[in-house]
Amino acid sequence: MEPTNKVRFESFSDGVFAIAITLLALELHVPALNTINFKAADLIPLIPGVMTFVLSFIAIAIFWVNHHQLTQVFTTISRRRILWLNIFFLLFLTLIPFVTETMSSNVLFAPAISIYAVILFGASASFSWLRYWIHKSCNDGHIPMLRSIIGPIFYFLAIIAPFFSIELGYLLLAIPPLFYFLPKHSTSSL
Amino acid sequence: MEPTNKVRFESFSDGVFAIAITLLALELHVPALNTINFKAADLIPLIPGVMTFVLSFIAIAIFWVNHHQLTQVFTTISRRRILWLNIFFLLFLTLIPFVTETMSSNVLFAPAISIYAVILFGASASFSWLRYWIHKSCNDGHIPMLRSIIGPIFYFLAIIAPFFSIELGYLLLAIPPLFYFLPKHSTSSL
Amino acid sequence: MEPTNKVRFESFSDGVFAIAITLLALELHVPALNTINFKAADLIPLIPGVMTFVLSFIAIAIFWVNHHQLTQVFTTISRRRILWLNIFFLLFLTLIPFVTETMSSNVLFAPAISIYAVILFGASASFSWLRYWIHKSCNDGHIPMLRSIIGPIFYFLAIIAPFFSIELGYLLLAIPPLFYFLPKHSTSSL
Amino acid sequence: MEPTNKVRFESFSDGVFAIAITLLALELHVPALNTINFKAADLIPLIPGVMTFVLSFIAIAIFWVNHHQLTQVFTTISRRRILWLNIFFLLFLTLIPFVTETMSSNVLFAPAISIYAVILFGASASFSWLRYWIHKSCNDGHIPMLRSIIGPIFYFLAIIAPFFSIELGYLLLAIPPLFYFLPKHSTSSL
Repeated sequence: MEPTNKVRFESFSDGVFAIAITLLALELHVPALNTINFKAADLIPLIPGVMTFVLSFIAIAIFWVNHHQLTQVFTTISRRRILWLNIFFLLFLTLIPFVTETMSSNVLFAPAISIYAVILFGASASFSWLRYWIHKSCNDGHIPMLRSIIGPIFYFLAIIAPFFSIELGYLLLAIPPLFYFLPKHSTSSL
Repeated sequence: MEPTNKVRFESFSDGVFAIAITLLALELHVPALNTINFKAADLIPLIPGVMTFVLSFIAIAIFWVNHHQLTQVFTTISRRRILWLNIFFLLFLTLIPFVTETMSSNVLFAPAISIYAVILFGASASFSWLRYWIHKSCNDGHIPMLRSIIGPIFYFLAIIAPFFSIELGYLLLAIPPLFYFLPKHSTSSL
Repeated sequence: MEPTNKVRFESFSDGVFAIAITLLALELHVPALNTINFKAADLIPLIPGVMTFVLSFIAIAIFWVNHHQLTQVFTTISRRRILWLNIFFLLFLTLIPFVTETMSSNVLFAPAISIYAVILFGASASFSWLRYWIHKSCNDGHIPMLRSIIGPIFYFLAIIAPFFSIELGYLLLAIPPLFYFLPKHSTSSL
Repeated sequence: MEPTNKVRFESFSDGVFAIAITLLALELHVPALNTINFKAADLIPLIPGVMTFVLSFIAIAIFWVNHHQLTQVFTTISRRRILWLNIFFLLFLTLIPFVTETMSSNVLFAPAISIYAVILFGASASFSWLRYWIHKSCNDGHIPMLRSIIGPIFYFLAIIAPFFSIELGYLLLAIPPLFYFLPKHSTSSL
C-alpha cells in the first residue's frame, strides 16, 4: 500500500463518532407522561436511561478525545493494518448505542450489563491495539502503556462481575472514565 | 496537553450538529391520513409537531452559526478544558431531538415544556461557558456578554414558567431566537 | 459580520445532505415476506416505496451537485444572509425523508403527493434564492436564471395538480430531474 | 463542467459511508431477555443478526477502504459522469442497512438472501464502473481488472444461488471479503 493521507481516515472516523454519540439520545424513549395527575416521581423510570446515556456519552467522548490526540502523531498512513485496526475499533463503537439501550431496559439484569461490558472491552482493547501500532509505525518509542491497559482491564472485569454483584459491575464500568479525569493523570500524560 | 489543531474539533462538532438537526425531522410522525373523507382539518394534529420542529431547528441553527463564528477566533486548542466544554455542550445538543418529541407529543403539558427548557438552558449555558474560555485562552478582551446571558436567562425562566402559564412558557422559549434576529443586534455584534 | 471561511459551511451542509439521503432508505420498511408460499408478486407492495425512494434520492443528489458547484464560486462568506438562506434551504432538505415516507404510504392519495410537492417546492425555491444571493455577493453577473426557475415552477404546479389527477402530479414531480439530465442542458450550463 | 476540487466529493461520500455503517447496528433489536430464568441459550436468536451485521460491516468497510484509495488517484473532478457514478454507487450503499435487516429477519429464506445479493451486486458493479472512469479520466493505464470483477461476479451468482441452496448463497456472499483479505492479493495490488 502506498502511503495515503489521513484526511479521510479522520473524517470517516469523526462521522462514525458523531453518529454513534448522537444515536445514544435516540435510544431514549419518550415517557408516557400522566398528564392529569403528574407527580415528579413519574420521572423516576427515566433515571436508568439517563444514567446509562451519560455513561456511554462520556465513554464515547473519551474515545474521541484520545483518537483525536492519536491522529496528531502521524501525517500519512503507510500500513493497511492501521486502516483495518481503526475499522475494527469503529465496529465496537457503532455497537455502543445498541448495548446502551439493552442495559438501560434491563438495569438490574446481570447478562445485559455483561454484554455492555463486552462491547466496551472490545472498543477499549482494539483502541489500545490501534494506538500501539500507530506509535510503532511512527518509530515513536513513547507508548502510553498505563492508559492502554486501564480500560481493557476494568471493562474485562465488568464482563464477569455482574453475575456476582450488579453494583460491582456498575462500579467497574465507572472506573475507566473516573481514572481518565483524575487530575494527576491529566497533567502527566495528556 | 500539546496544542492541537482544530480540524477534528470542527468536523466532529459539525457532524453532531448535522445529525441532531436532521433527526428533528425524523421525530415527525407520518399522520394516519383519512384517505376517503379527507378534509384540510385532518392536518391540524400535525401543527404542534411542525411548530416545535421549527422552534428546535432554529435554536440548533443559531447554536451552529455561533459555534461557527466562535471557532474563527482560534487556530489551535491548547487546553483540554475547551475540548471537554465543547463535549458538554454537545451532550445537551444531542438531547434536543428527544425533548422536542416529548414536547410535541404533550404540547399542553407543563412538565414536558419544562424538560424542553432544561435541555435548552443546559445547551445555552454550556455554550456561553465554552465561549468565555475560548475568548479567555486567546487573550481576547472582547467577550460578548449580553449575547452570552440572554439565552441562559430566558431558558431558565422557561423551566419554571409553564407551571404557572403554558403560554408564558412558549413565549419565553421564543425570545432567544427573536432576540437573535433583531436587526440592531445583528449589525452591532455579529 | 466579518468574512468567514466556507469550510464549516460546506462540512455542515454535507453532513445534512449525507444524513438526509441515507435516512431515505431507513424509511423503507422490511416487508413481512411470506416464507412458505412466496411468489415474486409478494414484492409488489414494495414498488411504491422503492419508486419514491429513487425519486427523492435523485432530487437530493441534484441539490447536492448544484450546491457543490455553487460553493466553488466563492471563498469567503461575507453576509449573514447567505448563512441563513442556506439553513432555510437545509430545513426543507431535512423534511424530504419525512414527506417521502408520507407519500410512499399513501401513493394514490392526492394530499400526500401535494405535501411532498410543498417541501420540494420549498427546497427548490430557497435554493434558487440562495444561488441568487451568492452570485450577487460575488459581483458575478452570470446568474443561471433558467435553471433557477424550472424547479420551483414544476414543483409548485405539483402542489395543485394531484387534486385533479394523481398521474399529472407524479409527472410534474418527475420533470425537474428529467430536465436536469437533458444532454443539451448539461453541456451548456453545467 | 469546470474542473472542481474533490473535498466535498470526499466529505459527502464519507458522511454517507459513516451513516450507513453506523445504521447497521441500529437495525439490531434489543432482545426481550428472560430476566428470571435466563440461560445463555436465550442469546441464540441474536446470532443471525450479529452475523449479518458483521458481514455487512466488513463489506461497507472494504468499499470505504477502496474508495479512500481511489480518491488518492485524482485531485480535481473534470467530468460530471464521475460525480453521478459516485452517487449511483452511494444509492446502493444506503440500501445495505435495509437489506441487512431484511436478511437477518429471514435468514433461511432464499428471496431475502437474493435481495441482499442484488444490492451488493449493484454496489460492487457501480463501484467498479466508477473506478474504471476515474482511472480513465486520469489517463492512468493501470486499471485493477481482477479486483474490479471478483465482487460483481460472486455477488451476481449469490442472487441466483439461494433458490438452489441457502448455504451456497451465504458462501458466495462471503467470498469477496475473504478474497480481499488474502495475503497475496494484499501485497500485490493494494
